[in-house]
Amino acid sequence: MQKTYGELNPSSRVLLGPGPSNVHPRVLDALSKPLLGHMDPEFLEILNEVNELLQFVFQTKNKLTIAVSATGSAGMEACFVNSVEHGDNVLVCVNGVFGKRMCDVAERCGANVTRVEAEWGRSIDAEDVRRALKKGKFKLVAIVHAETSTGVRQPIEEISRLAHDNGALLLMDAVTSLGGIAVKLDEWEVDLCYSGTQKCLSCPPGLSPISFSPRAMDAIHKRKAKVQSWYLDMTMVEQYWGKDRVYHHTAPVSMIYALRESLRIIQEEGLRQRFERHYVNHHALETGLKTLGIDFFAEDGRRLPMLNAVTIPKGIDDLKIRRRLLSKYGIEIGGGLGPNKGQIWRIGLMGHSSRKENVILVLNALEEALNMEGAKFPEGSAAQAAEGVFSNV
Amino acid sequence: MQKTYGELNPSSRVLLGPGPSNVHPRVLDALSKPLLGHMDPEFLEILNEVNELLQFVFQTKNKLTIAVSATGSAGMEACFVNSVEHGDNVLVCVNGVFGKRMCDVAERCGANVTRVEAEWGRSIDAEDVRRALKKGKFKLVAIVHAETSTGVRQPIEEISRLAHDNGALLLMDAVTSLGGIAVKLDEWEVDLCYSGTQKCLSCPPGLSPISFSPRAMDAIHKRKAKVQSWYLDMTMVEQYWGKDRVYHHTAPVSMIYALRESLRIIQEEGLRQRFERHYVNHHALETGLKTLGIDFFAEDGRRLPMLNAVTIPKGIDDLKIRRRLLSKYGIEIGGGLGPNKGQIWRIGLMGHSSRKENVILVLNALEEALNMEGAKFPEGSAAQAAEGVFSNV
Repeated sequence: MQKTYGELNPSSRVLLGPGPSNVHPRVLDALSKPLLGHMDPEFLEILNEVNELLQFVFQTKNKLTIAVSATGSAGMEACFVNSVEHGDNVLVCVNGVFGKRMCDVAERCGANVTRVEAEWGRSIDAEDVRRALKKGKFKLVAIVHAETSTGVRQPIEEISRLAHDNGALLLMDAVTSLGGIAVKLDEWEVDLCYSGTQKCLSCPPGLSPISFSPRAMDAIHKRKAKVQSWYLDMTMVEQYWGKDRVYHHTAPVSMIYALRESLRIIQEEGLRQRFERHYVNHHALETGLKTLGIDFFAEDGRRLPMLNAVTIPKGIDDLKIRRRLLSKYGIEIGGGLGPNKGQIWRIGLMGHSSRKENVILVLNALEEALNMEGAKFPEGSAAQAAEGVFSNV
Repeated sequence: MQKTYGELNPSSRVLLGPGPSNVHPRVLDALSKPLLGHMDPEFLEILNEVNELLQFVFQTKNKLTIAVSATGSAGMEACFVNSVEHGDNVLVCVNGVFGKRMCDVAERCGANVTRVEAEWGRSIDAEDVRRALKKGKFKLVAIVHAETSTGVRQPIEEISRLAHDNGALLLMDAVTSLGGIAVKLDEWEVDLCYSGTQKCLSCPPGLSPISFSPRAMDAIHKRKAKVQSWYLDMTMVEQYWGKDRVYHHTAPVSMIYALRESLRIIQEEGLRQRFERHYVNHHALETGLKTLGIDFFAEDGRRLPMLNAVTIPKGIDDLKIRRRLLSKYGIEIGGGLGPNKGQIWRIGLMGHSSRKENVILVLNALEEALNMEGAKFPEGSAAQAAEGVFSNV
């Protein structure tokens, strides 16, 4: 007899991990609208709108500002495969999992990779980049704006200047930053940028917004060899998103609907208001965590408001606490990646998940869980500390 | 002042083109369920179920039977990048756009491509494959099961034997066939297969179901060089879908929900019943079109039931008719690709779109449109002819 499968009935979750974040009901609603064909004039107009709205959140006039039809990691790959050719020198800044991943992706494109490293939890030092760039001519400098594995924010402007002085393009990962802190592509002169939909855009995972500067497009059009990925070849994809409307691959219609709605929500809220909301909720969480004796993993002054990487207190079992949060409260928080496994928690306050009630909820849940492990925090003390922050704004 | 964007309100369409097809309301409903995290135990169980249900529709026991987190064309790329290394000899059968695309993808992987061609509208002759294979040792033979550009069905078994006799792996495109006609991976000994969600599975576009045989996995694990695509590297992706659950990239959670539901619907209907439904609706459409003097482009005996490629009658303006169908009836049918542009229409009857009422609707719409162009068909004659077929089953 054939196995049968029940109706889909996922448990309700408060998504406070490194993404996906909770999706706004309006976005879920858009996702379930009936399909248009990918060459339907109405759908092509929706693509135009997504292009404009993405330019708004990326703060750019770059024409090629679109959504790659796959998740953020494919956006990373799209940036590298289009800009890098076999034998190109590429400088990659590494201070976490996603910088490491960039090296792997670049090497698979045939790049000679030079690494500039910083300790995990710290940002990259522009001086180290300057020194490394002195040693040669580079096609590309790649850096992560918001390192999802460590919760570190990276200042970009000086490194951008250094890259361009060397004649290199600047590639920036904005997977976790876009929609939560300022991402100013034009002001910072970023040439290639990718993000993901499931973090501060609060859209389901499945698309990767990217933006390529005219300088990047020029370099791509001057390539000697074809882009090694057919699917991610922007010389073809731009002909579908652009005026020519040449069929390349079938666009993920429903996910484009969802992205449009999530961007519309951001526009309604306003970028500055959104960034302030993320900052305030982060600060309240930070203040509450301090009363629980929980320190941040990321260095002070470089902490991401949407991704709070904190050190697990000594003697506390990572998995036990996370399982309890999930089963008792439906809260998902993230564990550490790579060397940080079992060492840190990553508490996301991204997009629609970045809300006062979630800050209070996760603080209460953590306090209770730690008290059960023998800590002695007076009930409600963490939440109370957080409330102190909220009452000041 | 900032431009504002209205609420998403797509027109209602009857999707009878080459895909996407209309999505079952249950699938749209699943799509809009609240998100689980991609490492949530509940979501991992959903992945297990999708794996099992895909094995069911692919008629295979292949362990690596999963959904690539991107559309069908990325599935094609996943098959090639994993199996092909620089300098490998690859034989590609070309009788339409998607065979041509395979050559491009294979060449970007560094393959030496040998083509076996057939006229567009005809299937590949196994004798031609036999002759071509005599000239050397091949890593891979690639062929399209259902050529979406021409509506041709390709018999696979003999070519599979020839490929294996040569020591080559067999790669098959099942984008348009899966869920509409039999796709028997194990019986036919297909080693690498990819499909898309937006055709006969009637799920939105965005995922590519793939299945790799143990022989294919063995070849992949014995590669000398890393897979050139990080995102599509199945030696890593299999560790997320498999028991290890190693994080690779964030799974497209909502689309996986939708795929699960669409597969569940197929299981409920039964494969044989589904294939029969596709066949009957195709035959009724064919019979109705004959009364309108519309001939099939694909050779007799090799016509796909879900993708009816027909020759546009002399003197009829392709775009004018398609625009009328869209604006007056909300019907989307497809035009021709490449050399067939303006020459053929592609009328899809895929998955949830393959319904008696759609056959009658599109026949009436075409008849009216042709009558307006000066044809003289007695009103309702095409639909009547189709009804004759339905009344016999």
